[in-house]
Amino acid sequence: MVPRYSRSDMVAIWTPEARFQIWFEIEAHATDALAELGVVPKEAAAAIWAKGAFEVDRIDEIERETKHDVIAFLTNVAEHVGPEARFMHQGMTSSDVLDTCLAVQLAKASDILIADIDALLVVLKRRAIEHKMTPTIGRSHGIHAEPVTFGLKMAQAYAEFARNRARLVAAKDDVATCAISGAVGTFANIDPFVESYVAEKLGLSVEPVSTQVIPRDRHAMFFATLGVIASSIERLATEVRHLQRTEVLEAEEYFSPGQKGSSAMPHKRNPVLTENLTGLARMVRGYVTPALENVALWHERDISHSSVERYVGPDATITLDFALARLTGVMDKLVVYPERMLKNLNKMGGLVHSQRVLLALTQAGVSREDSYRLVQRNAMKVWDSDGALSLLDLLKADPEVTLSDAELEDKFDLGYHLKHVDTIFARVFG
Amino acid sequence: MVPRYSRSDMVAIWTPEARFQIWFEIEAHATDALAELGVVPKEAAAAIWAKGAFEVDRIDEIERETKHDVIAFLTNVAEHVGPEARFMHQGMTSSDVLDTCLAVQLAKASDILIADIDALLVVLKRRAIEHKMTPTIGRSHGIHAEPVTFGLKMAQAYAEFARNRARLVAAKDDVATCAISGAVGTFANIDPFVESYVAEKLGLSVEPVSTQVIPRDRHAMFFATLGVIASSIERLATEVRHLQRTEVLEAEEYFSPGQKGSSAMPHKRNPVLTENLTGLARMVRGYVTPALENVALWHERDISHSSVERYVGPDATITLDFALARLTGVMDKLVVYPERMLKNLNKMGGLVHSQRVLLALTQAGVSREDSYRLVQRNAMKVWDSDGALSLLDLLKADPEVTLSDAELEDKFDLGYHLKHVDTIFARVFG
Amino acid sequence: MVPRYSRSDMVAIWTPEARFQIWFEIEAHATDALAELGVVPKEAAAAIWAKGAFEVDRIDEIERETKHDVIAFLTNVAEHVGPEARFMHQGMTSSDVLDTCLAVQLAKASDILIADIDALLVVLKRRAIEHKMTPTIGRSHGIHAEPVTFGLKMAQAYAEFARNRARLVAAKDDVATCAISGAVGTFANIDPFVESYVAEKLGLSVEPVSTQVIPRDRHAMFFATLGVIASSIERLATEVRHLQRTEVLEAEEYFSPGQKGSSAMPHKRNPVLTENLTGLARMVRGYVTPALENVALWHERDISHSSVERYVGPDATITLDFALARLTGVMDKLVVYPERMLKNLNKMGGLVHSQRVLLALTQAGVSREDSYRLVQRNAMKVWDSDGALSLLDLLKADPEVTLSDAELEDKFDLGYHLKHVDTIFARVFG
Amino acid sequence: MVPRYSRSDMVAIWTPEARFQIWFEIEAHATDALAELGVVPKEAAAAIWAKGAFEVDRIDEIERETKHDVIAFLTNVAEHVGPEARFMHQGMTSSDVLDTCLAVQLAKASDILIADIDALLVVLKRRAIEHKMTPTIGRSHGIHAEPVTFGLKMAQAYAEFARNRARLVAAKDDVATCAISGAVGTFANIDPFVESYVAEKLGLSVEPVSTQVIPRDRHAMFFATLGVIASSIERLATEVRHLQRTEVLEAEEYFSPGQKGSSAMPHKRNPVLTENLTGLARMVRGYVTPALENVALWHERDISHSSVERYVGPDATITLDFALARLTGVMDKLVVYPERMLKNLNKMGGLVHSQRVLLALTQAGVSREDSYRLVQRNAMKVWDSDGALSLLDLLKADPEVTLSDAELEDKFDLGYHLKHVDTIFARVFG
Repeated sequence: MVPRYSRSDMVAIWTPEARFQIWFEIEAHATDALAELGVVPKEAAAAIWAKGAFEVDRIDEIERETKHDVIAFLTNVAEHVGPEARFMHQGMTSSDVLDTCLAVQLAKASDILIADIDALLVVLKRRAIEHKMTPTIGRSHGIHAEPVTFGLKMAQAYAEFARNRARLVAAKDDVATCAISGAVGTFANIDPFVESYVAEKLGLSVEPVSTQVIPRDRHAMFFATLGVIASSIERLATEVRHLQRTEVLEAEEYFSPGQKGSSAMPHKRNPVLTENLTGLARMVRGYVTPALENVALWHERDISHSSVERYVGPDATITLDFALARLTGVMDKLVVYPERMLKNLNKMGGLVHSQRVLLALTQAGVSREDSYRLVQRNAMKVWDSDGALSLLDLLKADPEVTLSDAELEDKFDLGYHLKHVDTIFARVFG
Repeated sequence: MVPRYSRSDMVAIWTPEARFQIWFEIEAHATDALAELGVVPKEAAAAIWAKGAFEVDRIDEIERETKHDVIAFLTNVAEHVGPEARFMHQGMTSSDVLDTCLAVQLAKASDILIADIDALLVVLKRRAIEHKMTPTIGRSHGIHAEPVTFGLKMAQAYAEFARNRARLVAAKDDVATCAISGAVGTFANIDPFVESYVAEKLGLSVEPVSTQVIPRDRHAMFFATLGVIASSIERLATEVRHLQRTEVLEAEEYFSPGQKGSSAMPHKRNPVLTENLTGLARMVRGYVTPALENVALWHERDISHSSVERYVGPDATITLDFALARLTGVMDKLVVYPERMLKNLNKMGGLVHSQRVLLALTQAGVSREDSYRLVQRNAMKVWDSDGALSLLDLLKADPEVTLSDAELEDKFDLGYHLKHVDTIFARVFG
Repeated sequence: MVPRYSRSDMVAIWTPEARFQIWFEIEAHATDALAELGVVPKEAAAAIWAKGAFEVDRIDEIERETKHDVIAFLTNVAEHVGPEARFMHQGMTSSDVLDTCLAVQLAKASDILIADIDALLVVLKRRAIEHKMTPTIGRSHGIHAEPVTFGLKMAQAYAEFARNRARLVAAKDDVATCAISGAVGTFANIDPFVESYVAEKLGLSVEPVSTQVIPRDRHAMFFATLGVIASSIERLATEVRHLQRTEVLEAEEYFSPGQKGSSAMPHKRNPVLTENLTGLARMVRGYVTPALENVALWHERDISHSSVERYVGPDATITLDFALARLTGVMDKLVVYPERMLKNLNKMGGLVHSQRVLLALTQAGVSREDSYRLVQRNAMKVWDSDGALSLLDLLKADPEVTLSDAELEDKFDLGYHLKHVDTIFARVFG
Repeated sequence: MVPRYSRSDMVAIWTPEARFQIWFEIEAHATDALAELGVVPKEAAAAIWAKGAFEVDRIDEIERETKHDVIAFLTNVAEHVGPEARFMHQGMTSSDVLDTCLAVQLAKASDILIADIDALLVVLKRRAIEHKMTPTIGRSHGIHAEPVTFGLKMAQAYAEFARNRARLVAAKDDVATCAISGAVGTFANIDPFVESYVAEKLGLSVEPVSTQVIPRDRHAMFFATLGVIASSIERLATEVRHLQRTEVLEAEEYFSPGQKGSSAMPHKRNPVLTENLTGLARMVRGYVTPALENVALWHERDISHSSVERYVGPDATITLDFALARLTGVMDKLVVYPERMLKNLNKMGGLVHSQRVLLALTQAGVSREDSYRLVQRNAMKVWDSDGALSLLDLLKADPEVTLSDAELEDKFDLGYHLKHVDTIFARVFG
């Protein structure tokens, strides 16, 4: 965890206090279930809720001796609860607590991330509608292609993050399971009722078959999904970085009055937030492979996954939460320059309309190869003039181009390109 | 693609012939749609279906000059169709063809992979039922824990691959979209009806908003899902490798009469198939990150994703198909040794029942700490004897252990551990 | 391997023929060494060289039965050599042949890659000298900063690839070892002299301690090094892609007369080669992690590494060879536009000289904070004018700016920035 | 950073205090150099050393306003130094400070890691010599092969980590460079002498050509090297995990008296440290790809690498430091069971000697195929008996086996396999 890339709500999920509190609830609910089964006295279960408490420092102290965190926790809780504490953890194994706790933490983290995406979607939708008809040049390969609108760019991002939301909801469902099945998953010493009971109390589904642990393909899928979301963040961040380039400058990250861009060049306003997001995306992606390598535990379990999860659990969720919020902030305040967009769009002397002319020639009966040749030879002149010549003028003057001036002029109408923006918006926003 | 790790059905999806055939169908269906709209003559559309053909060598030849694959393809098809060919590809862009084709290929590849998993599930279910009550020792950390059954191991694998099947179905849905939206996705030169028409003909859904390309978060999710499945393969392969170890030898890959294990040590029968699967899993996982890096294309698109997909498209699907089939073969023919499982289970002098004794002591009113101490001191003697001493005998002889001989004997009953196998099987197999 | 991203010399290293030829040489040299030791008859060793031969198809045929490639090879060679063939492979194990062969292949591949880098360095040096004093704007964060020269960009790339060359030489040394040490590396059945003898004949160093295999940390280091080189390729490719953007257009990939840029937009000249290199870099990087995962083989060896190496060995080296050659071609023919560079440099109204003014003010006794404020307020006016206003004019007119007009004009001298280009070139090129 | 996987010396390198202290030294040395050049007053340089100070909290406070860390630092130092502070940072850019600081930190981290490896090498050498002649079975594919010694296993690990040490020294040299070259690396506003001066003071080499930043291929190589070392850690950790398996139990991690293995199964002693190391290796490997992705910065630099390095710089070095130290502890105290090794070695009824018999038959004139057949048919009987039958007895009784009893007995001599251990030790330890 890097403090500057962390937000408090997500961090709170991963504190020792939060973890032990979840452990306590798992143990207490499980004891309730055992009491309901008549395995332990109801008074013991009640006492655990009533007197149960823990101190992080004390647990750490005990763990330093026992080198076992769950035993340390139980010992500390027993110091508060007294003799009835012996009815806790009956027939359970440490992983019952640890894995179910991780499921709760990842479910909570998912809820925050889903809310983050929702906030981003609100902003993207607003910017999309705001700029629905703001023309800007579409670029493929970094080269001017044909007009789009800035709203369409936002609509694309919206659709992508809406997909990511659906993936995240699925990943949460995948990972949010409860296993209380004992030392090797056979329920030898604990009735399956306890598992169902605790699962319901914690809002988890029941793990159909566990070993000692919840199978790690669930977690692998979860972190892989975060990696996909991070890559989408990188995509939108890269778009902003490109738009803010000196030569393009169609949009800029908001630059607050007090902010300094560079110690050396005071005029500079750098897209540092989106560059930062690009780096953060690399990190979240970097956590995918360790999570995938965690799947192949030996036999009924080994504990190699545990250290990985101590890093990846907090780091991937905290970083992604921060990145989503930062991206939302960037998009919310993004300064958009429609005039500059139009200026850039027009700077190529009308080359961006060449596709329409090509099509018109073909439809007028010229062969595809000849049409291509005719458009290309005039287009190259415009290109070589660095936009000083006008494609429309050249085409009008080209004797082999058989289209009338009026027909040609019609092909240079910007509105032509935007006629289906409504269709697309209806698809995306309903 | 490595030939020895390839199967013909999957390979067939990725041949130039197959690709160009899909291209042809996209172009021909699109021309049908254009004809229906009245944009091109119906006769032209009919002529394309009737006379359309292509030759891979000829396309390659043209591409060497034009350095553009779709133009080369169209030129070659035009050589067969004649003048009506000029109505093909009207208002479309290369990516309309390329990306929709890739969607078709990945959808077909998904169908094979889903069938692969189905075949694996059939085998795993059969082996699970066959060995539902075959006792074997459960191990955590590679150390004997408590009894499970070999059928439970199979049930766990079944549940994991059933999850993977669901993930793959979702990934297929995610990636199987059709985009025919023109140069920058605005439908400027082509009506959205064409996209819907072609999508329906090819069994794809419509891409709600494309740029020039289908957004690559879809493909990233697809290949990430393959990486998760590969990791599950590694898990089951690792289990077999462990079981086949000389000292364990509870199961073996089938060893055909003609097969030679080693040029140097003729007695050796090595788990080479599952070791091989471990390596193949590494490869499929290795393709995840390039696919994630493909998401952040520049502006409306750049073509950096293309080379990655030329590798990853075939290599990930072909390798995973082969690996799933190989795993199915291994599990189908796996030679299981129940007697050896029982022998191993019993070799620790009954230590595996210590947990039950611990619990019984606690329930008889001994404190958790004292119970632990009593069991541990006898368990350590058994451990140090390398299984020569019997935990049951030692406990009976320990004056501090207050349980009767009959009570103690009851705790060493193997059946006790298997009483919930039915419950678990009902959860997994319904 | 993707044929279109493959060159014949590198492909030749990885053919079955080439592999079996190396196997043959290892076996034949080893038999020579055994003959020298008196273990086998000298006539047998001579016969192997004289009559030894193999056919790939026949080996494949035998392997289908035996499921063991080295035995199949030896059987086939024996069919040619006759009875003396029984003296081949004496005391050796398959991995002695396989691992030493891989070392030879990777050493040969390294030689090609080193030559590739050398060719690239020649081109980069030539372009660096050619454009040593061609001014262009340096950019940080995509924003104009201060002037550099295009030659400096080339010198940076040169220095980076010179480092990569040194790393590759080290990686080759690391991986080019010979192990002929028998079934578990103890030389139980073969004298260490054989290993030394074969190593010398093949130009390899001796593996000091092998198990059955050469330890895979060597290969991991090799492929990790290829991943670093690929990332450097991506860096230079990204630079070209940026320079070719429509709005920047300071350089372009060479566009041959017959080449077509886009089926839809005939005016487009896209940086498709460098975009392609960006994707190829992702692939070579993707092979690093599988190679790292190959290190932790079980005990004296397992064979999980083998399938990985069947992909990664050819794919990483062939792809990197192709990418280096393509990059060399791109840089060799890169069309550079010095006038456009100058035009871009000047378009910001002189803002790029602000740092010098800032420094001059500080040195004239103005506090750092005041200097910053003075420069910033004028710079912001220029920025907001989109380059229409001139920073020099504004500063002259600012009463708080205490520098004389001559002093200010001196700060806008382009040559000032280039005075240490010689120093840097001397460092890089000697 | 995960506190439980961190050691204080390495953590100290990455604290804000340590970072700012290095910044201060860079700035102060640079001002000395500027004074020596006569650019700034010597008194100013002296004043900076004399009065220079900083407070982390105050820097954070200023950064919250300026959003620029180096400006915040300089402002805070100026609060202590007074007016002379304006001579600091003359002609420098933030990256001059940041990148040179990172080089110092990575060099210091390298020194700790090199010392870690040295400590590990000492332990591995001691254990190697201790068990130089302790026989144990060599295993390929997890299957018994031929005898080795436990000392050989240690010698292999020693050689591998000696290679890693050499790689780390090279990686340190690669990354330990100083760049003080100004806003775009041209030394426009600062003399190259300053760079050389500071480099020498800090024990760094001079970066021959920088942009604004030190090129990130250096860092990529550094972190890739850490990934290789981590993979070697995983290899040795995996070996220990295998040796500690219940069925193998040839060695065990030291288990302290107070330590509790499992809350449920008091007899269990689990290889939790080496399982933990396996997970930590996954994390260090996971940091390689983000570092590789950092290479392709845009133009003269973007800041996307920065966030990655805030994670990877501390996390990779701290985790690897901890892992090396933990591994050293494990190997130092590893409890080795030579009797168990011998027992396991002998349990297969002498099958491990089959290779020698095969060779003897061949040398006695039997064809390779017949020899193989004869050994295999007896070996299979032993194998099927689970080690109850003796290969030696069966071979003596086989009429087709033409070797005398004395000749056969000679082939079952354990010492035969260990005759070259001295040779190998001399290669490894000199």
